[in-house]
Amino acid sequence: MMSATASLVLYGEVSDEVVHARAYLSRVAEPPAPALARFVEEVGPVEAADRVRSGAVSERVAAETSARRTVHRPAADLAAVEAVGGRLLVPEHDEWPLAAFEAFSASELPGLAPPLALWVRGPGVLARMCDQAVAIVGARAATGYGQHVAGDLGGGLGERGFTVVSGAAIGVDGAAHRGALAAAGPTVAVLACGVDRSYPATHDVLLGRIATHGLVVSEYPPGCVPGRHRFLVRNRLIAGLAGGTVVVEAGVRSGAQRTAADAEALGRILMAVPGPITSGTSAGCHRLIRDGALLVTSTDDVLEVCGRMGTHLPEEPRSGADRPTDGLGEIGVLVHDALPARQARDAAWLAMEAGIPINTARAALVELERRGLVEHEAGRWRRRLEAS
Amino acid sequence: MMSATASLVLYGEVSDEVVHARAYLSRVAEPPAPALARFVEEVGPVEAADRVRSGAVSERVAAETSARRTVHRPAADLAAVEAVGGRLLVPEHDEWPLAAFEAFSASELPGLAPPLALWVRGPGVLARMCDQAVAIVGARAATGYGQHVAGDLGGGLGERGFTVVSGAAIGVDGAAHRGALAAAGPTVAVLACGVDRSYPATHDVLLGRIATHGLVVSEYPPGCVPGRHRFLVRNRLIAGLAGGTVVVEAGVRSGAQRTAADAEALGRILMAVPGPITSGTSAGCHRLIRDGALLVTSTDDVLEVCGRMGTHLPEEPRSGADRPTDGLGEIGVLVHDALPARQARDAAWLAMEAGIPINTARAALVELERRGLVEHEAGRWRRRLEAS
Repeated sequence: MMSATASLVLYGEVSDEVVHARAYLSRVAEPPAPALARFVEEVGPVEAADRVRSGAVSERVAAETSARRTVHRPAADLAAVEAVGGRLLVPEHDEWPLAAFEAFSASELPGLAPPLALWVRGPGVLARMCDQAVAIVGARAATGYGQHVAGDLGGGLGERGFTVVSGAAIGVDGAAHRGALAAAGPTVAVLACGVDRSYPATHDVLLGRIATHGLVVSEYPPGCVPGRHRFLVRNRLIAGLAGGTVVVEAGVRSGAQRTAADAEALGRILMAVPGPITSGTSAGCHRLIRDGALLVTSTDDVLEVCGRMGTHLPEEPRSGADRPTDGLGEIGVLVHDALPARQARDAAWLAMEAGIPINTARAALVELERRGLVEHEAGRWRRRLEAS
Repeated sequence: MMSATASLVLYGEVSDEVVHARAYLSRVAEPPAPALARFVEEVGPVEAADRVRSGAVSERVAAETSARRTVHRPAADLAAVEAVGGRLLVPEHDEWPLAAFEAFSASELPGLAPPLALWVRGPGVLARMCDQAVAIVGARAATGYGQHVAGDLGGGLGERGFTVVSGAAIGVDGAAHRGALAAAGPTVAVLACGVDRSYPATHDVLLGRIATHGLVVSEYPPGCVPGRHRFLVRNRLIAGLAGGTVVVEAGVRSGAQRTAADAEALGRILMAVPGPITSGTSAGCHRLIRDGALLVTSTDDVLEVCGRMGTHLPEEPRSGADRPTDGLGEIGVLVHDALPARQARDAAWLAMEAGIPINTARAALVELERRGLVEHEAGRWRRRLEAS
């Protein structure tokens, strides 16, 4: 059991009463609980908790709380999260990502109600981590391509100090977290179950590493099991904690699509990585791009829109290999191309072949010579082979 | 040599004089020749040819015609194209795709000057073929993926009677033409050399098939050799003859990019097929999509924008596999998911687990039962396994 002293130390200036009230509310209501969230905003968490417990609430709040309102075990839940090295974050705390959740409170969509509290494990300071964060989400049944891309983006963002937010699922999520960890970058895993559980079980070690180096987050109290509905509801937090969401491989019907919809509803930047049109796991990405998501192909593409104020612009302009005729006008290219690969020709022949006046051809040849592309001898011009 | 009688038969009501004048002009000027095109529009082809030949033209027209104005061999060129079963199309003829070239004449860009005439081989009637035409262009160095996609799109468009326009190059172009031919669909190959030449040589048989079943087109007179500049100039015709252009695999610097730019400048619909971001041959497509081209993944996607007035809408809506919980509200899904896979639970337990009022849970269970998803016995509910 957690002592009052311990919680005072843990939560700084936030009172034990508030933390317990929110721990209770977090257990009582199945997220998202829009009526309860509004009620808590209006009367504060302590009064809200008291009235929920006694049933003295509006019909809408009752609908969200009546089933479990008698389950009152904040101390036990706080002890349980502490037992795994975790803690409860509440909106009253400095670590709460206030800016990230502004759009939730502003949203009229009941599905986008803000979380009442967040159970977390790890050294990361959530508010700071959300400052520069990108979500990478996608298919569990990712192909090798999708996993490669997710890992690469996770690593690229991690190297530049951006937080990679994802859902710790197998496939794209796991690859994104691993990429970030490999680059010693910050990463946040948002779970659809208690942070004391390892789901999926095969990611037990991965979740341990995230809890050691980054942050594992959930709005579900300790012990809660994941369920399909919870995965979908959880996805709004992934979308909300990041400034932008990148979808890497997703079927046309997938949880990632829900995250994408939430990101858009929250005013976040929605990005998607294309793939082969012959691959069903990229079909959802292509649909998103057709519907307006930004096509991204690299970390630079992501940072071009998610970086702050130009500080994360791509390092160098993209360009193909240089060609010897780069920068020449059309006439120059015309004359250059008219010259046979290995034979010398005079200006009149070239003018004829290129279909331009002879004086124009002569001027072009001088320019080509200046660039070292052609050479002349006895009134005839030839390509300089080493230049081509 | 072609006789005047033969040409009268070939060109119907168009006079021999006009055909010969345009054949001459087509040999004299290296396309695009914007000043000459305007001059021909102003004074007509016969007077324009006479004045070009005598040098009595403006400085700008002279710049486009002085180099080859003394090359006067329309009869020989017409005989040469006839020798390979071809003919010269001129704007005065019914077969001329007037609508397709409207945007050329309207364009202020000198690079988009309309062709003065078109040398063609094949049974196709160009004006009719352009009525419903889509260009498919892309990399010569296409991957297996790119060739597959191009062939698939070419076949899909061909099956629906759409003309596939391309450049007969190896790679994407060839696959697109082959797809169309395999579907017995109309196809137009626009060359950067005379229609009496097979370029690339490896496409000799393919070009023969297009000349037998579709149409081979060029603005270059018989005997002309291809050159890099001519490929680029030719690309505007590919873009212009089609209502939309699909780019299938293209590097960031490629001829296909030029075709894409021309398509946009001509007000045509520009589409691109995505691919793996790890593939350089898809990088140009991704760049185009980022810059506003429509991402397409299928013939249906193409016809959704290039089909006429809804007659070519996709045959069925896209959708993933059905799920048993499709169409259920969130509460229904919540309750359905709360039920363990193999154990029966009562409504109170389910309400608690799902975090909803018991009456809501009961209502949801009745709905789930109605849909055959759950069954109950002695006050406890279980999933119907065959439904999941």
